[in-house]
Amino acid sequence: MHAPNPRHAPNTNADIISLDRQHVFHSWSQQGQLNPMAIAGAEGCRMWDFEGRQYLDFSSQLVNTNIGHQNPKVIAAIKAQAETLVTVAPAHANQARGEAAKRILARAPAGFSKVFFTNAGADANENAIRMARSFTGRDKILSAYRSYHGNTGAAIVATGDPRRVPNEFARGHAHFFNPYLYRSDFWASHEEEECQRALQHLRRVIECEGPEAIAAILLETIPGTAGILIPPQGYLDGVRALADEFGILLIFDEVMAGFGRTGSWFAFDLFNVKPDLITFAKGVNSGYVPAGGVIVSEAISHYFDDHMFYGGLTYSGHPLAMAAIVATLDTMEAHNIVDNAATIGNGVLATGLQHISQKHAIVGETRGVGVFHALELVEDRQTRTPLAADKMNQLKASLISKGLLPFIAANRIHVVPPCIVTEAEVQEGLSLIDQALGEIA
Amino acid sequence: MHAPNPRHAPNTNADIISLDRQHVFHSWSQQGQLNPMAIAGAEGCRMWDFEGRQYLDFSSQLVNTNIGHQNPKVIAAIKAQAETLVTVAPAHANQARGEAAKRILARAPAGFSKVFFTNAGADANENAIRMARSFTGRDKILSAYRSYHGNTGAAIVATGDPRRVPNEFARGHAHFFNPYLYRSDFWASHEEEECQRALQHLRRVIECEGPEAIAAILLETIPGTAGILIPPQGYLDGVRALADEFGILLIFDEVMAGFGRTGSWFAFDLFNVKPDLITFAKGVNSGYVPAGGVIVSEAISHYFDDHMFYGGLTYSGHPLAMAAIVATLDTMEAHNIVDNAATIGNGVLATGLQHISQKHAIVGETRGVGVFHALELVEDRQTRTPLAADKMNQLKASLISKGLLPFIAANRIHVVPPCIVTEAEVQEGLSLIDQALGEIA
Repeated sequence: MHAPNPRHAPNTNADIISLDRQHVFHSWSQQGQLNPMAIAGAEGCRMWDFEGRQYLDFSSQLVNTNIGHQNPKVIAAIKAQAETLVTVAPAHANQARGEAAKRILARAPAGFSKVFFTNAGADANENAIRMARSFTGRDKILSAYRSYHGNTGAAIVATGDPRRVPNEFARGHAHFFNPYLYRSDFWASHEEEECQRALQHLRRVIECEGPEAIAAILLETIPGTAGILIPPQGYLDGVRALADEFGILLIFDEVMAGFGRTGSWFAFDLFNVKPDLITFAKGVNSGYVPAGGVIVSEAISHYFDDHMFYGGLTYSGHPLAMAAIVATLDTMEAHNIVDNAATIGNGVLATGLQHISQKHAIVGETRGVGVFHALELVEDRQTRTPLAADKMNQLKASLISKGLLPFIAANRIHVVPPCIVTEAEVQEGLSLIDQALGEIA
Repeated sequence: MHAPNPRHAPNTNADIISLDRQHVFHSWSQQGQLNPMAIAGAEGCRMWDFEGRQYLDFSSQLVNTNIGHQNPKVIAAIKAQAETLVTVAPAHANQARGEAAKRILARAPAGFSKVFFTNAGADANENAIRMARSFTGRDKILSAYRSYHGNTGAAIVATGDPRRVPNEFARGHAHFFNPYLYRSDFWASHEEEECQRALQHLRRVIECEGPEAIAAILLETIPGTAGILIPPQGYLDGVRALADEFGILLIFDEVMAGFGRTGSWFAFDLFNVKPDLITFAKGVNSGYVPAGGVIVSEAISHYFDDHMFYGGLTYSGHPLAMAAIVATLDTMEAHNIVDNAATIGNGVLATGLQHISQKHAIVGETRGVGVFHALELVEDRQTRTPLAADKMNQLKASLISKGLLPFIAANRIHVVPPCIVTEAEVQEGLSLIDQALGEIA
């Protein structure tokens, strides 16, 4: 444990929470209804508050810190870069930036040749959309209702979840239903049917929106915040085939699913499908320094060799963020952290969640891959009515009181520990979830 | 000087440029026409390449590093925060975040009570626009043609400069002409007339767009990239009065002009006008770690106490960026860096630019305040025809060859050194500009 920064005098949870409530405006909230936890420090899969209370982090801080907290190699790289050259304008050539791009491209499939860096996932999607519109000369972007693509102008309208609705100030976006057998929008009764109908539905949306008007289909490879919705085998192939048939680009949003979360470098590696543009953020450097970007295919890169790219930003390829990417990817490789996410995630974590699912009638479904799992909670297994919000709040409070930091979304617990999680930590976390579910039921 | 990071082997300019050209996709460019400089390190107002060649930085890296390069107090704070807690989700209370918000609010006018942190200036404007639309229940955003507000969906359409045109995919934006006497859009012949006509024009735009449809007027207090256009006395008061008359919110974009650049904490301090929302980035921590945000008035903060705020992002209030803000603002205060920007900028810099302007017929106008000045170059002082692009390119190459890193925009040199610039450095930089202008003319 490290002592809190001596620059800051107050040292109790109450002080820090009061400082926050006085001055800080929070995301996605009614500001009068906030009760934030004070976090003083962290290491590996643990965090602690200012009074020494420890938490097992099964949220990865919004599915972000894949490498775990305070990885010493990444911290050292940030400090070294801070001493060398903390920032530089994007027009200049920067060593850390070149090295970061090279390492990202080394993990991308063949046929990708450049990286455009942004500040985060939202503006990664903004710029992928911009590239697709410019490259195709077409206007519309199709994306799924069950999706989240960020909070900026185009990203939030590409987003399909209800947060889009109060924010619909961009044009040229249309939405389609994506596969989700447990709550099928296609009256399907098994995976194959869900897949086939979802593809038929997408074809109909393309036909009705006008193929010649559609620049790109933007999809989270595995929709994350929407519920960790593993696409049925064949779906992403089918989308790729539809895109090819109509000359539409395919953008995979790997902001949450990428860089180890699924037990592979990219989630689409699990499906053997190749997009035209890949957007990323979070796991690329575990969010140690804000960064995101677009991995650009050769064809699109070449197009922009002699066509102007109409986008850009001051912090594109920020050296501090780039140094964190280099160290994160090197450390993940050296310590087989992606393999760990696969082994632990598809082993003891998946098995344990199946067991919990069988034990508690409150669990409607468990699904996932790697360290990217969801428990979907229901009032009743027959009707599949989502567990009521007050019970979800109660469950969240119970998990926190037991020492587990959960990621709660609607009626689900997303079980998303860092990719470095150990078998013992998984057992500990699952045991706390097991207890909490027992108390609610 | 610090040695380049030992993790990276290559060490010549050519290596770093080749690494960049192979892997990195650049902002606002045709990728095939790039010739980036390799920057190895920096300190104060100087940067250097991998072969030891030094440059005096009169660009501040896109008008960003107000505190100069590699300020040791800010670097130390980044390193200390990296060791304590490098990242945390925005929902948790974080000490550095609370302290950063408190310090920003201490410099804002009375009547501001919360800070919403973003990743940069573009999403600061996105979220200020979102707040204004939600608070007023109105749709439209008015902004100036001569402006730049960022590259994301709403920000780029709020932007008035030509980069907007290929990106117009958001609705609800309308533009008006802002005052710029040297190239008046109102056939005005003096400042007072320009001001009065610009306000009359804005009133007509408001009437024609429908006052009850307009959520906010978004203005750079001093338009930056558009040419460092100091508004005539009375203009911002007049805009405030129009906003009040029609129940429209006023957003000042202080991303480039704020935090010391003009010789005051905020540019609007020079005009005694108070907006409802203030957006910031860059100077708040000199871009050492990507960060931006919105300073929210009490009235708007209160509104969101019991109304949902429909925006948010993973890196909102990122601890590393927050620690850099705390150290930057404390250091700027302790070392009177804002006063230095005023003293040097309005003294030796302004005087020297006047002298250059009188000496070279190629200079049409010089204008500015603090360390925020522009030299507008023309083919002919009568016609005011902007200096041709090939001559601007020649000038840029000449300045760089003489050891000056310039900020060139269209037919202008923006003279924007760090706020810590000394009298000797100003004299050195002006002498190089003087020589280069002499060679072109």
